[in-house]
Amino acid sequence: MTPIKKPSSKDKSFTTKESPIGIFDSGIGGLTVVKSVMNALPNEHIIYFGDTARVPYGIKSTDTIRQYALQITDFLLRKNVKILLIACNSVAAAAQKEIKTRCGNIPVLDVIEAGAQAAVAQSSHTGQIGVIGTLATIGSGAYDQALKKLNYEARVYSRACPLLVPLAEEGWIDNLVAIETLKTYLAEFSNIKLDSLILGCTHYPLFKESIRKVLGDDLTIIDSADSIAVMAREHLDSQNRRNDVSKGKFDCYVSDKPQRFKNLAERFLGHKLNRVKIVTLDG
Amino acid sequence: MTPIKKPSSKDKSFTTKESPIGIFDSGIGGLTVVKSVMNALPNEHIIYFGDTARVPYGIKSTDTIRQYALQITDFLLRKNVKILLIACNSVAAAAQKEIKTRCGNIPVLDVIEAGAQAAVAQSSHTGQIGVIGTLATIGSGAYDQALKKLNYEARVYSRACPLLVPLAEEGWIDNLVAIETLKTYLAEFSNIKLDSLILGCTHYPLFKESIRKVLGDDLTIIDSADSIAVMAREHLDSQNRRNDVSKGKFDCYVSDKPQRFKNLAERFLGHKLNRVKIVTLDG
Repeated sequence: MTPIKKPSSKDKSFTTKESPIGIFDSGIGGLTVVKSVMNALPNEHIIYFGDTARVPYGIKSTDTIRQYALQITDFLLRKNVKILLIACNSVAAAAQKEIKTRCGNIPVLDVIEAGAQAAVAQSSHTGQIGVIGTLATIGSGAYDQALKKLNYEARVYSRACPLLVPLAEEGWIDNLVAIETLKTYLAEFSNIKLDSLILGCTHYPLFKESIRKVLGDDLTIIDSADSIAVMAREHLDSQNRRNDVSKGKFDCYVSDKPQRFKNLAERFLGHKLNRVKIVTLDG
Repeated sequence: MTPIKKPSSKDKSFTTKESPIGIFDSGIGGLTVVKSVMNALPNEHIIYFGDTARVPYGIKSTDTIRQYALQITDFLLRKNVKILLIACNSVAAAAQKEIKTRCGNIPVLDVIEAGAQAAVAQSSHTGQIGVIGTLATIGSGAYDQALKKLNYEARVYSRACPLLVPLAEEGWIDNLVAIETLKTYLAEFSNIKLDSLILGCTHYPLFKESIRKVLGDDLTIIDSADSIAVMAREHLDSQNRRNDVSKGKFDCYVSDKPQRFKNLAERFLGHKLNRVKIVTLDG
């Protein structure tokens, strides 16, 4: 029997099937991706980073988002992740190329690519797709580009909705303020027959029911958290890199307010977490 | 005639009447203070720092706000300011003591102290004062403490209003969403006979008219921007440190999106600005 080569401590890029999956977001929104990945890949070790000190990203410039995203990428590479999932649309829009370059042979998937694929799969080719997201995501035109790459040529309608993240953080997802805000942002969609609406921000799935109230039930709503989890499973299977040995494990790092994050995450994921650790990246 | 001692380059704390006034905030909100200081002290050289990369502060932890505030304080001390005005309530609440220690003999004034003084001056001593602000400001109890220091013993009612900053940044200050948001936040004030309401965040003066619509016209609304400008003038006069020579000058530094800041500031201040410079404090 050939002995299995053990990684040397200098070989930073050596990963095994049991190496963790890295997932990151500007704050808590990326937990929607964590939940979907836990369902799709229950044996994996997930390491999550939420940049809670510097949230929100969606109002920042491309340069600043890139700088922050590469600091987080370096942190997760030091944790020896076997695949990296960008769970933040603003980061995917601003820094996806730079992160791929930094990661070398470690594969990188992102919520924009995943959301675009799911939308095309569920839309008629002559039809119309709506996209809502933060100022940074919509301003970048990243969804239009991702849809073009998939040869989707029909009309794409985009709208930035900067108030939805603070509304979600306040827990106002279906009160009068939330409904009136959605009515204002989505007014231009109400006269268009959309095939599907991409929720281009990981906070937005919280508004799914309210969006249905405003735009009606006919619409297919695309939640990219599920799509990226399926992509990750397909990718790991195709490379025979899926963890079929260990029991799932979840480690959480944030840049501020670990206790608040722990409470929210436990409520959201439905089970207790280990200690959420605090890390300073800009010190 | 005794020659005037010139400052050596090592003597960092040497300031003259013509040295600048330093003003800082987490973002654009502190421009309300700049405008009031320009009116009250038209000859002064003002240096402003807006931390637009890391805005908003109001949702961050005390430790993180302190770290950021001291980085900005050091930056302004290197600019040789003769007095420092904290134009951000969240910073005043979290880091006022630490900033004063760091500044040594350079005086530090803040919007909380100024707002509390103005509110007491305009309230009956047996009466009631309302305070609205960010989560960080209200959570700190800083206004209660400032009012206690002034021996104001009547009842103080506080309410955090986290959505008002993003609403102001979106420009929604008097539409249906803004009014409904204010109605929800201010519901508990509607049955209390308040003498005055302190706007404990530099963004909130934008909602003055809408607050009147919700709470009525009887209320005295305290805008601490004017109060801190008057305090600064009194302080400089008492020390004979007012600039009575130069023509007023305004220099602006931000940590992200200088062009956006320039456009907003020019609209807000009503005149053209020099280049807004970008500075990275956490690199």
